[in-house]
Amino acid sequence: MHDQAPVRTQAAAICVPADALRRQIVAILRGWGVSAAHADAAAELLVYADLRGISSHGLAMMANYAAHRPQGSFTLAPEIVTVRETPALALLDGGAGMGHLPGIKGMDLAIAKCAQIGIGAVSVRNSWHFGAAGYYAEMAVARGFIGIVTTSVWNNAVVPTHAAEPMLGTNPIAFAAPARRNPPFVFDMATSTVAAGKIQLAAIVGKDIPVGWSLDAEGKPETNAQRAWDKRFLTPLGGTPDMSSHKGYGLGAMVEILSGTLSGARHAAVEKRAGRDIRPFNVGHFFLALDPAAMRGDDGFRDQLDALIDALRTARPVDPRQPVLIAGDPERARHAERVRDGVPIPQALAQRIRAMAAEAGVDYGLEG
Amino acid sequence: MHDQAPVRTQAAAICVPADALRRQIVAILRGWGVSAAHADAAAELLVYADLRGISSHGLAMMANYAAHRPQGSFTLAPEIVTVRETPALALLDGGAGMGHLPGIKGMDLAIAKCAQIGIGAVSVRNSWHFGAAGYYAEMAVARGFIGIVTTSVWNNAVVPTHAAEPMLGTNPIAFAAPARRNPPFVFDMATSTVAAGKIQLAAIVGKDIPVGWSLDAEGKPETNAQRAWDKRFLTPLGGTPDMSSHKGYGLGAMVEILSGTLSGARHAAVEKRAGRDIRPFNVGHFFLALDPAAMRGDDGFRDQLDALIDALRTARPVDPRQPVLIAGDPERARHAERVRDGVPIPQALAQRIRAMAAEAGVDYGLEG
Repeated sequence: MHDQAPVRTQAAAICVPADALRRQIVAILRGWGVSAAHADAAAELLVYADLRGISSHGLAMMANYAAHRPQGSFTLAPEIVTVRETPALALLDGGAGMGHLPGIKGMDLAIAKCAQIGIGAVSVRNSWHFGAAGYYAEMAVARGFIGIVTTSVWNNAVVPTHAAEPMLGTNPIAFAAPARRNPPFVFDMATSTVAAGKIQLAAIVGKDIPVGWSLDAEGKPETNAQRAWDKRFLTPLGGTPDMSSHKGYGLGAMVEILSGTLSGARHAAVEKRAGRDIRPFNVGHFFLALDPAAMRGDDGFRDQLDALIDALRTARPVDPRQPVLIAGDPERARHAERVRDGVPIPQALAQRIRAMAAEAGVDYGLEG
Repeated sequence: MHDQAPVRTQAAAICVPADALRRQIVAILRGWGVSAAHADAAAELLVYADLRGISSHGLAMMANYAAHRPQGSFTLAPEIVTVRETPALALLDGGAGMGHLPGIKGMDLAIAKCAQIGIGAVSVRNSWHFGAAGYYAEMAVARGFIGIVTTSVWNNAVVPTHAAEPMLGTNPIAFAAPARRNPPFVFDMATSTVAAGKIQLAAIVGKDIPVGWSLDAEGKPETNAQRAWDKRFLTPLGGTPDMSSHKGYGLGAMVEILSGTLSGARHAAVEKRAGRDIRPFNVGHFFLALDPAAMRGDDGFRDQLDALIDALRTARPVDPRQPVLIAGDPERARHAERVRDGVPIPQALAQRIRAMAAEAGVDYGLEG
């Protein structure tokens, strides 16, 4: 369950069909010189996120990519190289390009190995932002497998427990598993307490934020939303030492090791301490696919997961109007709406995209 | 980093060498009729925990085992059966006995497969309490591998976000990875915000507990420690919806799926909803071993993890007297003390053990 970013949909917005969104993203990226395969993969991931209400990982990411393009932070049309491959494992090198295509290739390869021997693990290094991690975990579910995905992040945003400076990225974990009657269990979380977008929203509406979301330069809780947004010192899940933030910190470090150390990518914490420029980015990802039928020797996993999901849904709610949810529920509800009605794109973002299209010499197609 | 349970060491205590502790545990279990292999494995796990300050998973667990023995909750000398095995995967059945021996066999098998093909995953079903999950993750590290371990739990203690009744166990995740100069990264967390032992301590000293540790029967925060201890409705990591408890809930459900659904074990939530007795226990575990050298094709993982650990340690601390820690640090510090000085065992627990030994017809050996 991603932190939704309601700020982007509360302002005046236009509603854009997914196909138009996809074509616009591809057109701009192609205009920049991004390879067709990379552009298609990026559009796939960004539209996936926008359709599910994960706006921070949707079209809004184009502004981020655009800001980095003139700095040479990423390679436009890199070759993706298989560095090593065994029946169970593979290591890919993303060629310092965008992360979406190496991500898809990585999980595809993990799935192919899993189909052969029941499990497959693929590391990717020398990559960058790959979109919402849940996408790749769902790729495994589409084949009947369990998917586990982690990625490191290139900027230091999360402050370790007892520290007063950020050392880790928001380092997400995604996990998905197939049920039979029920939709799949699809879990995707950043290891920070909240996404920066939640702090931004509070700043815009002028509300204080709770103790435990953000820290000041002394490592003390920052409850002023504007100052928290300006600084962006996020806490690890848990929020404060009293509430076991060491667990969120440990999860974030675990993701850093699985994604970055295992693949041989760079660690933002190490580069920061060494005072080195972190560009070109060298982010690492980890993809695991695991076949429940190969483990169990029967087809009962999906039915048993149905029983678990059904039991969790019957948990007595605090408020009958807010039933107990299963990971993936909020995104599925949003997806159904947006496939029908289109994706709401705030006017301000639409104008950014119009300018990007003009600058790239391609048509603007979000409106009319 | 386990939640330490200081309550057990603040009362009057005797100091017991690890070997005496181990012999006492084996003697009582053998007196009950537990097989030699199961008794040795249980002692290994309980002493591991006590030496590291994880008192809730040490000798104190004997009281729990003793309470369940006359109920026939577990089989004393079961056969552990390999249900299925492939080059990458295996499924074991613990025969409804104690979990420590199937746990060791499970991780041993995952390690053996990993040594052959770079990765190995083993599920165990029909098992029970297996001690501290970190032990098994460290088994992988001793062979130079990454270890990942999860287990389901037989009692419902953790309340899903928006619910007013517990549906999941404390469902721990352990992850360990080998460094070179530095000790290994050893992370072991329950997916609840805090251990029940922390609430017990507050109740004993008569202090309120923070909002976010525990809930009342209406699902509202319970800050009275005695009432919280009596009820034991734990929150998922995050603590409250505002602080992203849905992430802790999602992690707990992920562990339930990996441990219980994948192995074909029972889910405490499903049994509760069906109104069925959960005995004999049928808990599931999951063990994964992954060889970084097989993934990377070089021996650089340990050095790179050293660099990451070094960088994290240099994070500017909030308070210079409380440096930033790495997962495993507190347990290692406690281990060094206790190997030297022995394990402090509260008088009340020592008296319980003395009575247990007498009842089992074996010598009492913790004192003199």
